[in-house]
Amino acid sequence: MKIAIYPGSFDPVTLGHLDIIRRASVMFDRLIVAVMHNQNKKPAFSAEERVGFLKRTTADLPNVEVESFGGLLADYAKQKNACAIVKGLRAVSDFEYEFQMALANRKLNPELDTVFLMTSAEYMYLSSSIVKDIAVHGGGVADFVPEGIMQDIVRRIRKGE
Amino acid sequence: MKIAIYPGSFDPVTLGHLDIIRRASVMFDRLIVAVMHNQNKKPAFSAEERVGFLKRTTADLPNVEVESFGGLLADYAKQKNACAIVKGLRAVSDFEYEFQMALANRKLNPELDTVFLMTSAEYMYLSSSIVKDIAVHGGGVADFVPEGIMQDIVRRIRKGE
Amino acid sequence: MKIAIYPGSFDPVTLGHLDIIRRASVMFDRLIVAVMHNQNKKPAFSAEERVGFLKRTTADLPNVEVESFGGLLADYAKQKNACAIVKGLRAVSDFEYEFQMALANRKLNPELDTVFLMTSAEYMYLSSSIVKDIAVHGGGVADFVPEGIMQDIVRRIRKGE
Amino acid sequence: MKIAIYPGSFDPVTLGHLDIIRRASVMFDRLIVAVMHNQNKKPAFSAEERVGFLKRTTADLPNVEVESFGGLLADYAKQKNACAIVKGLRAVSDFEYEFQMALANRKLNPELDTVFLMTSAEYMYLSSSIVKDIAVHGGGVADFVPEGIMQDIVRRIRKGE
Amino acid sequence: MKIAIYPGSFDPVTLGHLDIIRRASVMFDRLIVAVMHNQNKKPAFSAEERVGFLKRTTADLPNVEVESFGGLLADYAKQKNACAIVKGLRAVSDFEYEFQMALANRKLNPELDTVFLMTSAEYMYLSSSIVKDIAVHGGGVADFVPEGIMQDIVRRIRKGE
Amino acid sequence: MKIAIYPGSFDPVTLGHLDIIRRASVMFDRLIVAVMHNQNKKPAFSAEERVGFLKRTTADLPNVEVESFGGLLADYAKQKNACAIVKGLRAVSDFEYEFQMALANRKLNPELDTVFLMTSAEYMYLSSSIVKDIAVHGGGVADFVPEGIMQDIVRRIRKGE
Repeated sequence: MKIAIYPGSFDPVTLGHLDIIRRASVMFDRLIVAVMHNQNKKPAFSAEERVGFLKRTTADLPNVEVESFGGLLADYAKQKNACAIVKGLRAVSDFEYEFQMALANRKLNPELDTVFLMTSAEYMYLSSSIVKDIAVHGGGVADFVPEGIMQDIVRRIRKGE
Repeated sequence: MKIAIYPGSFDPVTLGHLDIIRRASVMFDRLIVAVMHNQNKKPAFSAEERVGFLKRTTADLPNVEVESFGGLLADYAKQKNACAIVKGLRAVSDFEYEFQMALANRKLNPELDTVFLMTSAEYMYLSSSIVKDIAVHGGGVADFVPEGIMQDIVRRIRKGE
Repeated sequence: MKIAIYPGSFDPVTLGHLDIIRRASVMFDRLIVAVMHNQNKKPAFSAEERVGFLKRTTADLPNVEVESFGGLLADYAKQKNACAIVKGLRAVSDFEYEFQMALANRKLNPELDTVFLMTSAEYMYLSSSIVKDIAVHGGGVADFVPEGIMQDIVRRIRKGE
Repeated sequence: MKIAIYPGSFDPVTLGHLDIIRRASVMFDRLIVAVMHNQNKKPAFSAEERVGFLKRTTADLPNVEVESFGGLLADYAKQKNACAIVKGLRAVSDFEYEFQMALANRKLNPELDTVFLMTSAEYMYLSSSIVKDIAVHGGGVADFVPEGIMQDIVRRIRKGE
Repeated sequence: MKIAIYPGSFDPVTLGHLDIIRRASVMFDRLIVAVMHNQNKKPAFSAEERVGFLKRTTADLPNVEVESFGGLLADYAKQKNACAIVKGLRAVSDFEYEFQMALANRKLNPELDTVFLMTSAEYMYLSSSIVKDIAVHGGGVADFVPEGIMQDIVRRIRKGE
Repeated sequence: MKIAIYPGSFDPVTLGHLDIIRRASVMFDRLIVAVMHNQNKKPAFSAEERVGFLKRTTADLPNVEVESFGGLLADYAKQKNACAIVKGLRAVSDFEYEFQMALANRKLNPELDTVFLMTSAEYMYLSSSIVKDIAVHGGGVADFVPEGIMQDIVRRIRKGE
């Protein structure tokens, strides 16, 4: 059974993330969406909230699981028996950073490969930061985040300011 | 009448910004230089100071106005009846970020297009951060900022440390 | 009256080109689409055919004209009294080449500025070469070229092989 | 059964290609290495030679097949029941071109996704052109091409000049 | 006598930095490794520690000296009679930032040129941040930092959290 | 004595090349400008003409020599006892190609390092192709090529068409 991990901050999940999750879930037998909690960055949403949004959004995908994790991705992948990390690429700057991370992860765990999917053209401009920025200033984010969780995201962001 | 907006932090205005302002003022009937105040970033100069520097520097350009604004650029442009946002490009990394912002702004306001001008070669290396960095360490910034406001910028930066 | 020039090979015109033409025609009083004939490159379509496709495609835009030209763009712009060259950007590699050309053109004609529009996300992958490649191999190009000229383009490309 | 296609010119196969083939063969049930014959480009090796080099080099990988094909990749993938195209990325310029091709292929065949693997650091500088360039000028290519076919490649390139 | 300066944060020194130091020490008569202390960034290691690590690691290179400095690099270079700044490039994003800094430094001190060396392929993924990230999470860094100082770096990073 | 090689096509030499030659001649004891003759590319000027233009242009630089060469740069450098190849960088696309070549050359000759200088801002847009393109179409190239050889370059290019 081929297991892959799609790691990220998902702060919050966007339609761009969801597009990658759907496409990767077709290519692997099991896909673990791994919400990273990093003590250095202050997320807008707690790890629990971010996992919750992802679970509600991927409930129709039976081979997708959502977990949170800290620590080293290379170790986490080994423990989960994953053969691949999945990453979405939007732009050249993504590419460079991800290239370095992929090489470092292969050094730490030579069994672990990183597989890249290109973000669909219609989500290319999309990032969690842009969503938060728009919501804070009262703009509509219906085109940017999954429908079922939009209200919760907007309510939470505006209250949080 | 065609109105364009040139948004930015202008913390402080450099000769590179001024070059873009002059060139864009030729291409549109009215150009609004919009100083963004963003609560997340701590600017070196207050919004009032930044507006003041820009007003003194563009006093000879009758169709250029300077304002400060918070909130969403797409909303601000609608309210000002602007048909275009003007941005200066210096480098590939500018390009990528601005590309994402231009696509997001068109999504939020389909009437609003973004127009890019290439920074003149002699100002390509120039940024507000480099100006502040040089001034803090006692370097001369005569080649980097408009003549009329240079003394004020230097005095203010050195005192601020 | 502000006149701009949108130069290119247009071999053949794609929906991406047409998107730039429509948006630029809103921003300037008059837009000249200039089909370059360059003796070094062998186009798939003659200059006359390329001009013809563009004329049929832009017939509903009253302030857009189509012409062919050889020689130096900076000279042509002067002769047409144009204040700006319009270019569409799709990717970082476009950006670099166009940056160099914009700087060279300003050196040759300091009155002449270059203005860049970002290609809409849905046309980002599109180029005249991809259209020709698909048509040659019998693929459908309905999503790629203007409707009214699609049949002619396909017929001509397949016959030409 | 998950089938993927790794298309390319392979003119000739390098250690960089072989690295991608080995890694992709672990991730899919069947991998088809597809040697493209394109009438516009004049390859140094015939399609038969290129297929032959690949077959000898991948003989120990039971789930890897080598074929040549002309025409449209999106059609070929459909005919082979492939769910993914595999591409190796070395550099930003690869990235841009492959991004456009991946978007075009998804437009032509929405079931068909493109998956990218990063070239291993030690093969990052490697391309078929560099191999040919070195061999023509009498340099050693033992670090660049698979051992079993090195002599044949060198003999053939030097004779070909 | 030709003197060059290799400036950086070195927080901490990696095998990638050491590779650049060795190669630059062959090309100049004297190489000054300059540890920058910047009040804005909070380093993981004090300037004294960073200088110490570098001194132990370069003890076998007689023409290499290690110093710390604050202030403007262009002034520091003048005071040291250096004719060149040495920088290592790993990626496109390094390139852009360094290009701007090189142009700014030439403006401030026209005698001072910047010379770039490409990072060796095996260290391309390597940065001080990645080293710290791995060490904090309990990963091994033997492939990433000079042997003689590895224990000290790891002990210090883990204690520091 | 430290010897460096500055290789290129120089078809023809521009003010940008000359800027790199002057700066590199300060940093090395001897600089060999090596005009490559490549049978695949058809240059506008013969190797003899290109060498001639360079010799006239660098006559005032006593430690600069001009030669033509074919074959492998790594071999040529060994034969000349050079410790470094000098390359000018203008843009990200230069960077990528040169990065690959630098890694390949170090593989072929581990003693041979490549040193990069950033092109001065005022020559960033400049290339031999742009010069030829402008001259062919009757534009002035006084800002682009060395004064002493401008007439000869223009006469030769226009006659050559």
